[in-house]
Amino acid sequence: MALRIYGVARSRATRPLWLARELGLDHEQVPVIQSYRLPDAAAPDAPLNTASPAFLAVNPNGQVPSIDDDGFVLHESLAITLYLARKHGGPLAPRDLREEALMTMWTLWAATHAEENALAVLTHLPPASPKHDAARAAAAVAALRRPFAALEKALREGGGHLVGGRFTVADLNVAEVLRYAQPAGELFAEFPAVASWIAACQSRPAFRAMMAEREKEPA
Amino acid sequence: MALRIYGVARSRATRPLWLARELGLDHEQVPVIQSYRLPDAAAPDAPLNTASPAFLAVNPNGQVPSIDDDGFVLHESLAITLYLARKHGGPLAPRDLREEALMTMWTLWAATHAEENALAVLTHLPPASPKHDAARAAAAVAALRRPFAALEKALREGGGHLVGGRFTVADLNVAEVLRYAQPAGELFAEFPAVASWIAACQSRPAFRAMMAEREKEPA
Repeated sequence: MALRIYGVARSRATRPLWLARELGLDHEQVPVIQSYRLPDAAAPDAPLNTASPAFLAVNPNGQVPSIDDDGFVLHESLAITLYLARKHGGPLAPRDLREEALMTMWTLWAATHAEENALAVLTHLPPASPKHDAARAAAAVAALRRPFAALEKALREGGGHLVGGRFTVADLNVAEVLRYAQPAGELFAEFPAVASWIAACQSRPAFRAMMAEREKEPA
Repeated sequence: MALRIYGVARSRATRPLWLARELGLDHEQVPVIQSYRLPDAAAPDAPLNTASPAFLAVNPNGQVPSIDDDGFVLHESLAITLYLARKHGGPLAPRDLREEALMTMWTLWAATHAEENALAVLTHLPPASPKHDAARAAAAVAALRRPFAALEKALREGGGHLVGGRFTVADLNVAEVLRYAQPAGELFAEFPAVASWIAACQSRPAFRAMMAEREKEPA
């Protein structure tokens, strides 16, 4: 097996798992669980998790996903997708240095301007969430308005895509970060280009296939 | 002027400003101030700042730095340095796809595993800081031990550098993020490879020249 992806699909491993399907990459998934999701991750009979010595030998940060691509080990989900896209080429990959720079820019934008608040929406907004907290959710939604406005402007100017007028790994990376914010339906309603764009991203067969596999995993 | 860098040096603009000096790039700096540092950023006579319409036309995110490289506008400090290194080549740039992937990985690692807590150290640890808060500073230092341990391991395995056994844009990006944590001297003392590495990064003539210019700006 040339490409191994470490991580359950109920993790940021969705990012490389989606991309692998977009590119038709033969791959093996090793379902490493996040240790915080286990009652006793250190127990001898605990399933392979991010605190297991066997996995810490792969990624000392103790986070999923990581990949092993024919002996090349790489961490950070958003760096993994950029790497796989560049390696395999095609329409999802950058065509030149400027496209590559813009894809890296949008990826860092998502990680630093949006991810923390998007995760706060996912954690605190749904009334059924064990960590439901309406005030924290509202603060996260409010903080997302500025990045959403910048994204809306870019999507309008870019014809519904972030880079190069086509679906690329930049759309995939940003869409996977903003998926966490989707419980805030009113936020997406305020930014129609963002709403159309994430719907288009999530209607792609590779995304749907990845999510269908994910649903089979224990919650 | 082929390369314009927007942002005062007392901002994340240090990253491209340092890199421009490493590469010997002729550049113009437009000293855009962060709006939160001004008593009234919206006043008609306020200096150019991140809330000024003229700058928001450059970066709708309202953050510095951005660059205009011969008509190509790019945001996100850590994406800018990766782009400029790739464009100009040389020892700071990736030599192949795997080095490029590792440089992107370390950059995302710094932004997502370290920057928030490093900034919390800078803001809350120094007793003279107006936001001094010993408990928050201690929590940030504690949270940085795990990423510092991963970095220590990587630096020991990599001969004191992150990628390719030499100083690259990856070291520059990560060192500029971890500079914020330097008030926590005891943290660096626990991780001697990290301490040696950041001292080596900061002894480079280009870093020292950038910081000397920075010191001339109003605090």
